[in-house]
Amino acid sequence: MQTPWEHRYAHRTQRMGSSAIRELLKYTEQPDIISFAGGLPAPDVFPVEEFGSACQKVLHDYGSQALQYGTTEGYLPLREMIARHTIRYGIDVTADNILITSGSQQALDLLGRILLNRGDRILVESPTYLGALQAWNAYGAEYVTVQSDEDGMNTDALEEALRTGPKFIYVLPNFQNPTGVTLSLERRNKLIDLADRYGVPIIEDDPYGQLRYEGEHLPSVVVLDNQFRGNSNPEYRGNVIYMSTFSKLLAPGLRLGWVVAPPEVIRKLVIAKQACDLHTATFNQIVAYEVGHGGFLDTHIHVIRECYGHRRDVMLGALDSYFPPGVEWTHPEGGLFLWATMPEDLDAAEVLQSAVKRKVAFVPGEPFHPCGGGKNTMRLNFSFATPENIQEGIYRLSQVMKEIIDNRVFA
Amino acid sequence: MQTPWEHRYAHRTQRMGSSAIRELLKYTEQPDIISFAGGLPAPDVFPVEEFGSACQKVLHDYGSQALQYGTTEGYLPLREMIARHTIRYGIDVTADNILITSGSQQALDLLGRILLNRGDRILVESPTYLGALQAWNAYGAEYVTVQSDEDGMNTDALEEALRTGPKFIYVLPNFQNPTGVTLSLERRNKLIDLADRYGVPIIEDDPYGQLRYEGEHLPSVVVLDNQFRGNSNPEYRGNVIYMSTFSKLLAPGLRLGWVVAPPEVIRKLVIAKQACDLHTATFNQIVAYEVGHGGFLDTHIHVIRECYGHRRDVMLGALDSYFPPGVEWTHPEGGLFLWATMPEDLDAAEVLQSAVKRKVAFVPGEPFHPCGGGKNTMRLNFSFATPENIQEGIYRLSQVMKEIIDNRVFA
Repeated sequence: MQTPWEHRYAHRTQRMGSSAIRELLKYTEQPDIISFAGGLPAPDVFPVEEFGSACQKVLHDYGSQALQYGTTEGYLPLREMIARHTIRYGIDVTADNILITSGSQQALDLLGRILLNRGDRILVESPTYLGALQAWNAYGAEYVTVQSDEDGMNTDALEEALRTGPKFIYVLPNFQNPTGVTLSLERRNKLIDLADRYGVPIIEDDPYGQLRYEGEHLPSVVVLDNQFRGNSNPEYRGNVIYMSTFSKLLAPGLRLGWVVAPPEVIRKLVIAKQACDLHTATFNQIVAYEVGHGGFLDTHIHVIRECYGHRRDVMLGALDSYFPPGVEWTHPEGGLFLWATMPEDLDAAEVLQSAVKRKVAFVPGEPFHPCGGGKNTMRLNFSFATPENIQEGIYRLSQVMKEIIDNRVFA
Repeated sequence: MQTPWEHRYAHRTQRMGSSAIRELLKYTEQPDIISFAGGLPAPDVFPVEEFGSACQKVLHDYGSQALQYGTTEGYLPLREMIARHTIRYGIDVTADNILITSGSQQALDLLGRILLNRGDRILVESPTYLGALQAWNAYGAEYVTVQSDEDGMNTDALEEALRTGPKFIYVLPNFQNPTGVTLSLERRNKLIDLADRYGVPIIEDDPYGQLRYEGEHLPSVVVLDNQFRGNSNPEYRGNVIYMSTFSKLLAPGLRLGWVVAPPEVIRKLVIAKQACDLHTATFNQIVAYEVGHGGFLDTHIHVIRECYGHRRDVMLGALDSYFPPGVEWTHPEGGLFLWATMPEDLDAAEVLQSAVKRKVAFVPGEPFHPCGGGKNTMRLNFSFATPENIQEGIYRLSQVMKEIIDNRVFA
């Protein structure tokens, strides 16, 4: 049955097809499935008690403010807290460099809104974060890809890609989504140097930077860029826009992310954001500030690291024990994901179909490749499932793969 | 000092100029100003205690769910509660007809995103809601206007405007923002009839429908449209998309709005929303459900009506007492605003400049007119200031006007 709306949709909706993530997240809603599909934090590490106390304090002390409209830029003490956190890593910013967003997905959308004209090219790693592709497809973006390996984006191939004249470079240097790999320090410096030489700015997406389970913290691209420029200006005005989120440090259900950028970019983003949702929920911002300030985050991060680091080890162990020969996987030093590559003739979508029948789910790798490829790859999340379920789930998944391989051999 | 971003902004940012609302809201942040400028609810009516209990209950009983990622459509029990509320007004909907948005500003943005191509015309009342213009300007919308009077949009002029082929009609039938006027029943029916005849669908924005202080509730346009169609289909599939918000019923600081639409439109909106912010904060949705269900909203609305109805009466009385001859104003039966029209030769922007020096603020009417005009008009909010401040503020404002008039006479 037709409605009067059916023939009235905007052209851009044709690029807003059904989302692979969205369809796949449905599997994770079945209570009896072992899901490596989402990017969900473990509810075990949510600081529920701290939230409870913070809610009471905020409603008691700032009820009128917390439930009222707020400014588009965000709650000033929260922006100042993020500025202090950023300064700690060696870059001089103030609250004027910070915008609070409704999760980092909104940061991606707003950046697309202020920067992208239809047909603009974006230089991305391949594979790259699916949520960014979804955000930017709506603005008619095209993509130029640079392959990545265990050290992240291969900067040897970067110059050729830069010659296509991309609007910006999008990079996830730490424990990348989907691969889990980390951009090496050498490549970070090369990236900054080449980006500067070709006059192409960088968007650095860093949702997991704090979630390192081994090895040394590497300076973020925005910090290295600032050093590269010898920037003594109190306002950060460099070539890199940095974005992060409280989704993995506190809780995704609050929808709180942030952008660090030159003040002039923040002003553009503020105008764009006002038209999108006026401002991010005041209550959530004040509660996050109450939970997060005074050092709690610095303590809490150890709890998260211990929990996820253990789960990563369990998954790596299970992969070693169970996965069939010919399958390879990354060894992330942090984050939520690892990436498995099966033999060329195995199709992850086919594996998923059988896997779901065995009550285990993951995300096939193909949609993370904006220019195609990766049919034999998969993203495996290790933060959400319990260690026991990780063991069991990887076992089931290996059985599915083995059956498909065996059936082929005897076909 | 230039940054590498400066020459990289999208063309659409040229239509995202500085916002009049935004600049003016700054006045309301000064603590000693009497502000009629914003559209802020009175903090006096925020159900702070109920929020406190709900936060505790939600964190205790559903902590893992409330702090976790959720579905883009929104929290099912909240969508079902909204469906039940909608059914009460005589239209048969289910949760599949409901999308939860991050405030009703996001509903406006998402509707623009799925419906508008650059250059599409939207038929609006003049004046109309500034937030809608801001949302749709970003998608390159053009506007066709129909003047309104004390009975709302003048449907006698509607047919001519419909002949220009607008994509949809945008109307705020109840206690309109900015004028406070209500579309009469006769005009509602004429609107539905003409919209159907010309095959143009309607977006009905109803943030204040529950806030009626006198007179009888009028059926909303979506309900009348359903009756018009004799729709016996269990899925609502009519010509009207309806939107509302919890900002005025509970608290704007939660950023919770909703859309009622045919399921096929909801599906498009969901895909668009996923790219914008994944989903609206889970915590806020569950807390709003806990506060709102079980009849609390039905009780609480009486508290709000009493508070705002009294403030409206105080403002109408003060206008009668103080405003100079030649100034006229609307007599809203509900909502948050009334609309004053000064003599043609008075400029509201000029009045505002002097008013701010006397520590009183309002919004000049011109920006609410998408095709220009209304320089001598102003929007006055009566929900936020206390009755004493309303008296004092209207007195000060009248003094400012009188001075400008007197100076002109003796010039």
